[in-house]
Amino acid sequence: MFIFINDSFLAEEKASLSVSDLSIQRGYGIFDFFRTINNRSIHLDDHLERFFYSAERMRLPVGKTKEQLNEIISKLIQRNNIPDSGIRITLTGGYSLDGYSLSRPNLIISQKPLTINDDVVSTIKLVSYAHQRQLPDVKSIDYMMAIWLKPYTEKKGADDLLYHTEGIVTESPRSNFFIVTADDKIVTPANNILKGINRKYVKGIAKKHFTFEERDITLGEAYHAKEAFLTSTTKLVLPVVKIDDKIIGNGKAGKTSLFIRQLLKDLISHY
Amino acid sequence: MFIFINDSFLAEEKASLSVSDLSIQRGYGIFDFFRTINNRSIHLDDHLERFFYSAERMRLPVGKTKEQLNEIISKLIQRNNIPDSGIRITLTGGYSLDGYSLSRPNLIISQKPLTINDDVVSTIKLVSYAHQRQLPDVKSIDYMMAIWLKPYTEKKGADDLLYHTEGIVTESPRSNFFIVTADDKIVTPANNILKGINRKYVKGIAKKHFTFEERDITLGEAYHAKEAFLTSTTKLVLPVVKIDDKIIGNGKAGKTSLFIRQLLKDLISHY
Repeated sequence: MFIFINDSFLAEEKASLSVSDLSIQRGYGIFDFFRTINNRSIHLDDHLERFFYSAERMRLPVGKTKEQLNEIISKLIQRNNIPDSGIRITLTGGYSLDGYSLSRPNLIISQKPLTINDDVVSTIKLVSYAHQRQLPDVKSIDYMMAIWLKPYTEKKGADDLLYHTEGIVTESPRSNFFIVTADDKIVTPANNILKGINRKYVKGIAKKHFTFEERDITLGEAYHAKEAFLTSTTKLVLPVVKIDDKIIGNGKAGKTSLFIRQLLKDLISHY
Repeated sequence: MFIFINDSFLAEEKASLSVSDLSIQRGYGIFDFFRTINNRSIHLDDHLERFFYSAERMRLPVGKTKEQLNEIISKLIQRNNIPDSGIRITLTGGYSLDGYSLSRPNLIISQKPLTINDDVVSTIKLVSYAHQRQLPDVKSIDYMMAIWLKPYTEKKGADDLLYHTEGIVTESPRSNFFIVTADDKIVTPANNILKGINRKYVKGIAKKHFTFEERDITLGEAYHAKEAFLTSTTKLVLPVVKIDDKIIGNGKAGKTSLFIRQLLKDLISHY
């Protein structure tokens, strides 16, 4: 398997960064992540747009144009030939002389097999936790709290976290959060979140088929929602069946969630 | 220059981590940092104790005892022969198969020349910013906000940040904060901070020579303090002469700060 670093395709075992890199020294970096299905990159334009946005917000010059990244990704896909995969583009703070100041960023593009059986519907249980991600609009590499909280999540019998601030729900560490209200409105938080790519497409679907609202959701409203679901590149639309000790709806994947899931699946498979 | 990684002393240019390391992937890691003066490690026991505390809190097994680390550090000092230096011990989340789960941590011990002219008294200007570090008691590698805020700090004409939460002052990104009150009490924040090693020694000095209080300090109280100073491994006792647009005291290094600074300097030089 090849990994692209800066200007070269390297064998995986040679793909490394000097320990002076600011990701290792100071946790400073951004990334984006997208799927390939049958060697087609899914929503790559959206992911590249967000990648460039994150890079600019973090003052990390990409050093390549979108066209150049597209070309590198095409070559990587050709070389590795892993038809169903996840591709991660990472940009770090670079090799810092003083271990604190930004330097020329290091660009890493890596690919791993990723097969998602879209025909199987899973469900997920969440536990709420009062936390606000730093610079939430940026897809930074900062997942310290989420990883640190893994034992807490397990102890609570949950599969993942639902972050909130003073009772206002924001997101799950790697997914966006949606609810379906009693009167079949689709609602998702507007603020202090990462704007997911599948969130965007689900928004489009929701606007077309339902009443859609982008606004604050309290934890209480989430508890009593008719349905709830997460969206992400790997989860598509993933029904939430429990939040804390509250069963959501009837504790099974809801009708509306499954309807939206099917439309998103179609959209991706026809991409 | 040699860098120790896991079990080997490597030439600096060979000291690298695979891009699958969780520091690069997810910003997950801890470190500690101490000075050597004339090849003597300053307060190494304190730094190792805190390093093991951070490691445990972050669920990162060090894989070595304190005695073993002491021995490795001695060898590194011998090999590199940089009498006046800073030594950094880093422990990362390790090479993660799924890019999210903790693995066997990578241990890195690196050394760099560091000469501090203790005879020259500098001063510093701070700008306040509402931010709480994540897991503040842990010396994690998470300095994303501090580095991100550098242009803000400069725009405000300041040298560094003073973090606060709803007006309660906590710390500077790489230093602890103290004030001297009108009636010559020494006060430092008690909560939501990293407990610095020089903070500990300054606390000892303050208890012996002054009335000392460890408690919340409001930004307002800081603005009107008779004196203020930072403590850290590299800054010793660094007088703060301005916070936001407020001059502290007479805008120069204060008498009490300089007195404490001298005692800390003596303590370190006799270590």
